[in-house]
Amino acid sequence: MKVSVIGATGYAGAELLRLIYNHPKADLVHITSESHTDEIISALYPHLCGICDKKLESIEDIEKIGADSDFLFIGLPAGHAMEIGRKLDGLPVRIIDLGADYRFDDTDIYEKWYKVRHTHKEAKRVYGLAELYRDKIKSAKIIGNAGCYTTASILAVAPLVKKHLVDVKTIIIDAKSGVSGAGRSAKLPNHFPELYDNFKAYGVATHRHTPEIEQALADIGGEEVRLNFTPHLVPMSRGILATSYATLKDGVTADDVDAAFNNLYDGEFFIRLRGRNAYPETKYVRGSNFCDIGWHIDERTHRVIVLSAIDNLVKGAAGQAIQNFNIASDFDEKMGLDFAPIYP
Amino acid sequence: MKVSVIGATGYAGAELLRLIYNHPKADLVHITSESHTDEIISALYPHLCGICDKKLESIEDIEKIGADSDFLFIGLPAGHAMEIGRKLDGLPVRIIDLGADYRFDDTDIYEKWYKVRHTHKEAKRVYGLAELYRDKIKSAKIIGNAGCYTTASILAVAPLVKKHLVDVKTIIIDAKSGVSGAGRSAKLPNHFPELYDNFKAYGVATHRHTPEIEQALADIGGEEVRLNFTPHLVPMSRGILATSYATLKDGVTADDVDAAFNNLYDGEFFIRLRGRNAYPETKYVRGSNFCDIGWHIDERTHRVIVLSAIDNLVKGAAGQAIQNFNIASDFDEKMGLDFAPIYP
Amino acid sequence: MKVSVIGATGYAGAELLRLIYNHPKADLVHITSESHTDEIISALYPHLCGICDKKLESIEDIEKIGADSDFLFIGLPAGHAMEIGRKLDGLPVRIIDLGADYRFDDTDIYEKWYKVRHTHKEAKRVYGLAELYRDKIKSAKIIGNAGCYTTASILAVAPLVKKHLVDVKTIIIDAKSGVSGAGRSAKLPNHFPELYDNFKAYGVATHRHTPEIEQALADIGGEEVRLNFTPHLVPMSRGILATSYATLKDGVTADDVDAAFNNLYDGEFFIRLRGRNAYPETKYVRGSNFCDIGWHIDERTHRVIVLSAIDNLVKGAAGQAIQNFNIASDFDEKMGLDFAPIYP
Amino acid sequence: MKVSVIGATGYAGAELLRLIYNHPKADLVHITSESHTDEIISALYPHLCGICDKKLESIEDIEKIGADSDFLFIGLPAGHAMEIGRKLDGLPVRIIDLGADYRFDDTDIYEKWYKVRHTHKEAKRVYGLAELYRDKIKSAKIIGNAGCYTTASILAVAPLVKKHLVDVKTIIIDAKSGVSGAGRSAKLPNHFPELYDNFKAYGVATHRHTPEIEQALADIGGEEVRLNFTPHLVPMSRGILATSYATLKDGVTADDVDAAFNNLYDGEFFIRLRGRNAYPETKYVRGSNFCDIGWHIDERTHRVIVLSAIDNLVKGAAGQAIQNFNIASDFDEKMGLDFAPIYP
Repeated sequence: MKVSVIGATGYAGAELLRLIYNHPKADLVHITSESHTDEIISALYPHLCGICDKKLESIEDIEKIGADSDFLFIGLPAGHAMEIGRKLDGLPVRIIDLGADYRFDDTDIYEKWYKVRHTHKEAKRVYGLAELYRDKIKSAKIIGNAGCYTTASILAVAPLVKKHLVDVKTIIIDAKSGVSGAGRSAKLPNHFPELYDNFKAYGVATHRHTPEIEQALADIGGEEVRLNFTPHLVPMSRGILATSYATLKDGVTADDVDAAFNNLYDGEFFIRLRGRNAYPETKYVRGSNFCDIGWHIDERTHRVIVLSAIDNLVKGAAGQAIQNFNIASDFDEKMGLDFAPIYP
Repeated sequence: MKVSVIGATGYAGAELLRLIYNHPKADLVHITSESHTDEIISALYPHLCGICDKKLESIEDIEKIGADSDFLFIGLPAGHAMEIGRKLDGLPVRIIDLGADYRFDDTDIYEKWYKVRHTHKEAKRVYGLAELYRDKIKSAKIIGNAGCYTTASILAVAPLVKKHLVDVKTIIIDAKSGVSGAGRSAKLPNHFPELYDNFKAYGVATHRHTPEIEQALADIGGEEVRLNFTPHLVPMSRGILATSYATLKDGVTADDVDAAFNNLYDGEFFIRLRGRNAYPETKYVRGSNFCDIGWHIDERTHRVIVLSAIDNLVKGAAGQAIQNFNIASDFDEKMGLDFAPIYP
Repeated sequence: MKVSVIGATGYAGAELLRLIYNHPKADLVHITSESHTDEIISALYPHLCGICDKKLESIEDIEKIGADSDFLFIGLPAGHAMEIGRKLDGLPVRIIDLGADYRFDDTDIYEKWYKVRHTHKEAKRVYGLAELYRDKIKSAKIIGNAGCYTTASILAVAPLVKKHLVDVKTIIIDAKSGVSGAGRSAKLPNHFPELYDNFKAYGVATHRHTPEIEQALADIGGEEVRLNFTPHLVPMSRGILATSYATLKDGVTADDVDAAFNNLYDGEFFIRLRGRNAYPETKYVRGSNFCDIGWHIDERTHRVIVLSAIDNLVKGAAGQAIQNFNIASDFDEKMGLDFAPIYP
Repeated sequence: MKVSVIGATGYAGAELLRLIYNHPKADLVHITSESHTDEIISALYPHLCGICDKKLESIEDIEKIGADSDFLFIGLPAGHAMEIGRKLDGLPVRIIDLGADYRFDDTDIYEKWYKVRHTHKEAKRVYGLAELYRDKIKSAKIIGNAGCYTTASILAVAPLVKKHLVDVKTIIIDAKSGVSGAGRSAKLPNHFPELYDNFKAYGVATHRHTPEIEQALADIGGEEVRLNFTPHLVPMSRGILATSYATLKDGVTADDVDAAFNNLYDGEFFIRLRGRNAYPETKYVRGSNFCDIGWHIDERTHRVIVLSAIDNLVKGAAGQAIQNFNIASDFDEKMGLDFAPIYP
């Protein structure tokens, strides 16, 4: 398959190049950047030296890039992917967008939270969270790759809402991410001395991943979900840990909870259930496409607490994109992703 | 005042020595350690070289140490302080215990969570969270210094329960701590490569600080509290950030919440209210006795989210102990604690 | 003494405000910033909230600021302090410049390495490394506060060159600094994910602190010095460790080396000699004005290796400035600096 | 090829398991641990869950393990591998020892620095630094895999000594390593809060990698080498950066130096020459088998300064072992190692 990476100079773009390098059936044809057009990617990311020394192109001639490619991976800020999607509507090229443009069924929600007018509302698109939307992804023209926080959050809570074990009005997701999730733009808040040996919350009750989580959980559970999602920044490079809380419905037992997880994720290679009273750490999954999940039933408060860990740049971005690419290409879902995490 | 530090080789003990060095009215007379008896403290903590080069004694002759001292600061594992307290019952020396032995009104709760029989149930003791128990601390013989997580948690939620603004059954506290909170014993989970670039939860729904938070909030609000408290380990040395959630009662407004914080903490030097929609970071308070607090009202979910930050070794341990010492000695409460945080 | 901080929004400026707050005889009158004029310093540095909430002024009216002040601390990029110095030549105000403008006896060297024309060559100035230039500092009108790397380097090697124990042509200084030394400007190389879990050299054989070290060592030893100085960036906030190598002259013994250190630094409060075969760590001095020094004699190679550690923002900048201020004001040299490092 | 990992629970052992998992021609048959016999490796290293869930065996029956295996990778403390080597002398199994037992031609040097009697002096062995000893490795029965610091150091200096461009008496290697190099045993010096935000030297002039570097450089250059090697600990998990200094012989030009590097490493996939005035960072190679090298000629001091970076657990241990395994098995040298570093 011929693949191109549009917006290759962000962290997710660079991670895609790492993963494509080891994918036996993905052939990289174009990489683009508007701010670094004509530069060599390995000059910007020296770790890629000898791995990927391709020249960055502009998207000015996106039609040609689209015509050359079977798949486009897009890693651009909100609002740009839909422009590309619209332009390439008539071409057979398929799109996996790592941004938010194609994640929402209801574009009003997108417009409200992203403050951008949606210009490709009619696009046929599917939500790209592989384990939960696999069947739709197979034949999709456009895949809206799930976000990083949302992947960790939805996978943690989905079994509970699917089996109606919890009161959806009580869901609270307290999430913590490494700093690579904030992108590669140098800004004072992400300046090394400001974050090192520091911990903070941000975007409290206003983060854009909130409606994305709500949409998926509502879809899975069949009832509207309104929840609290609080992101925090951990002084580390990679990894997300989400701590999710929900009140169990009356009569729900610990065994019911165990069964819900085991049933939904039976046979899923990339979901590693740690089980009840076992908690994943972000380091367990670093560099890999795994999502590790553990949970606890608190008899005192009748709550279930779920811990889920992913690498935000892999299962939360580039790895999931490759997984979706594999599904959409009818390849083995693990192709190019079947490697161990890096520890320590 | 003559002070001694019993159990001086833990991180809280060493932090006490740092603070006592700059306290104009505290005169250090004895420091003890059973595992390092007769060693010089600055050999174990080279940063103290030239600051405190005292020899560590054993507590074998605790009666003499007690007789020599106006105040004992105790930094020992659960179960040891109450033995000392019992032995010194007849002496005028006052005790500030940095451990849990004297924190609980109901020693059954202590015994249940700490799995230790309480041997000094009759002790006259007060809970040592200065801002909320100042009057009782003044004349206390024994002060059970508040724990680190609990200080951050209680100070964050106290205004809400005091004014009955939230449903106490909905309180969830998701807390994150630097690793110094786990003490100085070398164990695999706290081995550098295991924690670096890593984030995890631990003690989910079973951490011993849970009943301590519940006790104080129940006391303040006048109704029983049963909440979820989840501690996490941040790859940093110092600092706690607590993210507390609670559902607002019907009709409670954002102004009510603001007023509750402003009223309770009016004039408190060590509480810095960041206000609504402003969130503290652990680095804002590093090395200092401040507790910084900000909050957010989420209209969508009718919840209030409170962010509170402390340095776990200062306001969460040694600093609060000095603050209690000042109160109990009728000194200016800021004495020896009136300095800026270290940034960055 | 009335003091003002010119260029208060850099890390060294903020550290000065921390130290001045606790100095019993320094009264802060003005703080300035051109990029943040009229803003409150604690809005830029929230850790200073309640500690220093002063408004930042412009230096447009530097004459008035100079007239109001007994001392100016200047923390501006190379080239600006000498302009201020020139303007204030006729006023009694004394200047402690944390930058490089007044560090060089030979302004040609300054111009060559800093690529800036020196506009105040006639200034009466002294080099502000307190332990080695104390007598001159006492009455100086302008003090060129020693740089961070240079302080750690010079203090490590000075005893050896002073006593002519080493071949000065063989000196190599391999230094490592925390990232706060690079300032507060957000740039890609200092973006958190780029540096975290990373280590690198920079400015190899071209760093501007090289001639400053050479000047001082030549002055102390009485012969020209040309050495290699290699700075590296450590993924931490604060601290410098310098590893210095030099070949011992024939016949020089380990005792000679010990004596050289002991003699030169006898009675120096801020120099803590760890001794032979004992090595300081940056954490031993964090937040404090100490310089800790240890050394090793390698019989196999006839070299001496000296390890020296400072906090780059304290002994390497603001703390040394206060120390110089104390000397110049005839105060106790420890005033406002007599506190313990923060550990861990 | 059937391979076994003897001593699989150290960091290098676990890293071997990660790499073997993706090696198309290595079939893992046994893994051993004396302290965790009968445990499942993924219970000790949860990141390996689903990747390697093998049970750990004892080496009591090492003869059987040896008989079952084509290759043994040994990751045991000094002194143990030679016992195994001796026992298996008669078997066809080949040994790649990640420890020091088989690294020295002159076992007296080993005994002197390691304080262990060598019990297998007659072993036919080769030094396992692939780029420099490839031909001998091909047919070796026992390969003494090069150490981590030594790999970074030797590869940096080898071109200079091979071409006789530097005075070998002037070589100084100042090296910095992440903490995983210190192993997985929990000890106070490597306890998280002790090292975090800290930097230090250790083993100054006494580190055991010194004679290993000297042996290889003497072998390559044909003259005895006695140098200074100083290791430091960087607060990060992985990575080594070595800064090497040597005085150029008279008449040696920058072009000579460039040519020496280009000639020696021409065609070497795992050596990435950054060139003159370009410096590698440890993050450029993290998780990979690359060694990146850059250098600088200082005209002022007539020294060359070489910067080299590796991942200590890959090129410095497990990756180099696989590279040696490939060479010894007549496989493509890149097999199982041809992947990108992880960034950021």
